[in-house]
Amino acid sequence: MERLNEMVNKAKNASRILALKSSQEKDEALKKIAQALLTNTEKIIASNKIDLKKGKEKGLSKAMLDRLELTPTKIAAISSDILKVVSLKDPIGEEIETIKRPNGLIIKKIRVPFGVICAIYESRPNVSVDIACLSIKTGNACILKGGSEAINSNRELVKIMQEAIKPFLPLESIVFIDSSDRNTVNQLITMKGEIDLVIPRGGKGLIQHVLQGAQVPVIETGAGNCHAYVHKDANLSMAEEIIVNAKVSRPSVCNAIETVLVDKEIADKFLPIIASKLRQHHVVIKGCQLTKAIIDCELIEEEDFYEEYNDYIIRIKVVNDYLTAIKHINQYGTNHSDVIISENEQVCEDFLNRIDSACVYVNASTRFTDGGEFGFGAELGISTQKLHARGPMGLKEMTSYKYKIYGKGQIRI
Amino acid sequence: MERLNEMVNKAKNASRILALKSSQEKDEALKKIAQALLTNTEKIIASNKIDLKKGKEKGLSKAMLDRLELTPTKIAAISSDILKVVSLKDPIGEEIETIKRPNGLIIKKIRVPFGVICAIYESRPNVSVDIACLSIKTGNACILKGGSEAINSNRELVKIMQEAIKPFLPLESIVFIDSSDRNTVNQLITMKGEIDLVIPRGGKGLIQHVLQGAQVPVIETGAGNCHAYVHKDANLSMAEEIIVNAKVSRPSVCNAIETVLVDKEIADKFLPIIASKLRQHHVVIKGCQLTKAIIDCELIEEEDFYEEYNDYIIRIKVVNDYLTAIKHINQYGTNHSDVIISENEQVCEDFLNRIDSACVYVNASTRFTDGGEFGFGAELGISTQKLHARGPMGLKEMTSYKYKIYGKGQIRI
Repeated sequence: MERLNEMVNKAKNASRILALKSSQEKDEALKKIAQALLTNTEKIIASNKIDLKKGKEKGLSKAMLDRLELTPTKIAAISSDILKVVSLKDPIGEEIETIKRPNGLIIKKIRVPFGVICAIYESRPNVSVDIACLSIKTGNACILKGGSEAINSNRELVKIMQEAIKPFLPLESIVFIDSSDRNTVNQLITMKGEIDLVIPRGGKGLIQHVLQGAQVPVIETGAGNCHAYVHKDANLSMAEEIIVNAKVSRPSVCNAIETVLVDKEIADKFLPIIASKLRQHHVVIKGCQLTKAIIDCELIEEEDFYEEYNDYIIRIKVVNDYLTAIKHINQYGTNHSDVIISENEQVCEDFLNRIDSACVYVNASTRFTDGGEFGFGAELGISTQKLHARGPMGLKEMTSYKYKIYGKGQIRI
Repeated sequence: MERLNEMVNKAKNASRILALKSSQEKDEALKKIAQALLTNTEKIIASNKIDLKKGKEKGLSKAMLDRLELTPTKIAAISSDILKVVSLKDPIGEEIETIKRPNGLIIKKIRVPFGVICAIYESRPNVSVDIACLSIKTGNACILKGGSEAINSNRELVKIMQEAIKPFLPLESIVFIDSSDRNTVNQLITMKGEIDLVIPRGGKGLIQHVLQGAQVPVIETGAGNCHAYVHKDANLSMAEEIIVNAKVSRPSVCNAIETVLVDKEIADKFLPIIASKLRQHHVVIKGCQLTKAIIDCELIEEEDFYEEYNDYIIRIKVVNDYLTAIKHINQYGTNHSDVIISENEQVCEDFLNRIDSACVYVNASTRFTDGGEFGFGAELGISTQKLHARGPMGLKEMTSYKYKIYGKGQIRI
């Protein structure tokens, strides 16, 4: 696809210009986008209606259609989120470190944009605006490859954003891939040198597909098989509150828990309480042999512990001690977010050290794993890999660095 | 390969234990390795002789055999390098940042090991020791997959290292893949979840192969098509010294320059000087049309500017101005190391900002792009990607981080 090469190349060229823009210029462009979304609400909704109609014809689920739908309220919220991004500090140009060498070389480590970020995502059209605005703020050009089901909404949103930034930034700071062809994805993710980073956002299938084919570096997000472990020294009413919050406040998101591990010593006492509470919230309980001996529930196979339900279902397992709990979490989890509930400080610290996850909690809900809740002001996603970024990603995580080295004729002997 | 899975799994388990070890325990193990290499010098050399004999039979080049060969002097140097690593500060456990949230949550960002690092490399057996020791220092288990031509040397070195660390650390902190099968590489690089990071070290072919097949995150190293640009306001004798140093002090390495760009205004004056100087060092010169009109040299095609010679060959191109030079470097370069020679501060600063490379120099040799020269004390390689690490990688670049979050029962509302 000759045209794809050309478009990516334009994004690369735009990124060179964008990288040199001042914070003020970038913020002006963002404010203009926020304004333009409000002014063009009707147009956006008209385009969105086409997608919704097609979606209904295709038989998309109610949940999918909900995520696809844009309303004046949603558009106003997107617009006001952009103003929040404007108010954040621009990380670009930050002097991270200065090294003075005995030979007189001065080495400055400076925060710079990646260059071109390519986002590959599904359904929710607000992702187009999120990624574009976070990219602009951090001096990155972005290539947006959204899902086919939102293509009309995405096209309209990009058109409006491009129009808005024109007085301040190169048009191709935002490049829209107007294609529903999966082959386009396969090409994009191999364009090393042109694209600096790929971020897949969507279901397991999409992420797996990108990971398998990519030659461009990828930041993996999304998978969240999270655990709550109730230690024998737990405050049980605190455990109850945390587990209910971490499961039912929003079961569909990645920082919701899927499994509860309970110390044997307190299982008889705690399981009936938590089971009754979860059932009040219509949560289906699956349990191990020992759990089933205490409360009425469906028996679970070991293999099932790998599953991420994202639904009103929870697994309960009784464990002998905290080391067994840790072993279980490290084996079956996705290194996302896990919590211990205990009043024993030593055990808690050991849990924090041994659990190999991005976010490890003591006595708090895993639902706090979120850029906003961490105080980042904005969130690109939650990384479940260890390279570059781990856990919630904010503006800093959308940057790289370079070394500027100042000499006076030094040569290496 | 069932056995491979088992070995990788053992490395994962070892990494869990290693991650909890104190700096002192890790340093003791490293000192023991340094000692053991000296004590076992004869054994190492005997194994190395087998590789050398086979290499000669296979018809390996003199340069390849040189890199393969271990001598008592080389082994002593490897041993003393380990003691340098011992003396460095352990980055693990560092509190990178602490965030206190209005809801009382305390979020600590803590430096942690990756877990399991897999190195895939060629010829030089000292890489086995380098990677193993840097991994141990940073609490990572490592999987070593060296080249077939050094398999006897590598096997012996790993055996000695494992024996040395036994009293302090799990044996499988260092796992040796005793196979020359390229299929093993293909399996290793897809073992996501088990292996946390892959580092290919070797020729272009190897790196490309790893990048294409990997599902585990990769840090790319090696490619270095570096440039020196002589601006019209350069101190020409400084330019001469820097170019000669950057080309001939070690032409085979990635931070040596491949192309010299010279401003038109000074070409008549500078080209004869630099050409004569380079020829004194037996450097073959290829030039653009304009260069050829001034000095006697082979004519070069545009396409050739992508090439990395790693040899006594240099390209010279005459450019109209510094923006043309920057465009050339960003197009043909590998984003590694590039230098401007100029006394014009404003142009230099613009060059530093616009060149999209890991290390951008003003008036100094590109040969300084090196962990040792940057003061890192040790070097894992030089990254040419922008994700996670860029330029010389030291101990910090072999780490990730996790968030430890301390609550008192907070739930998300």
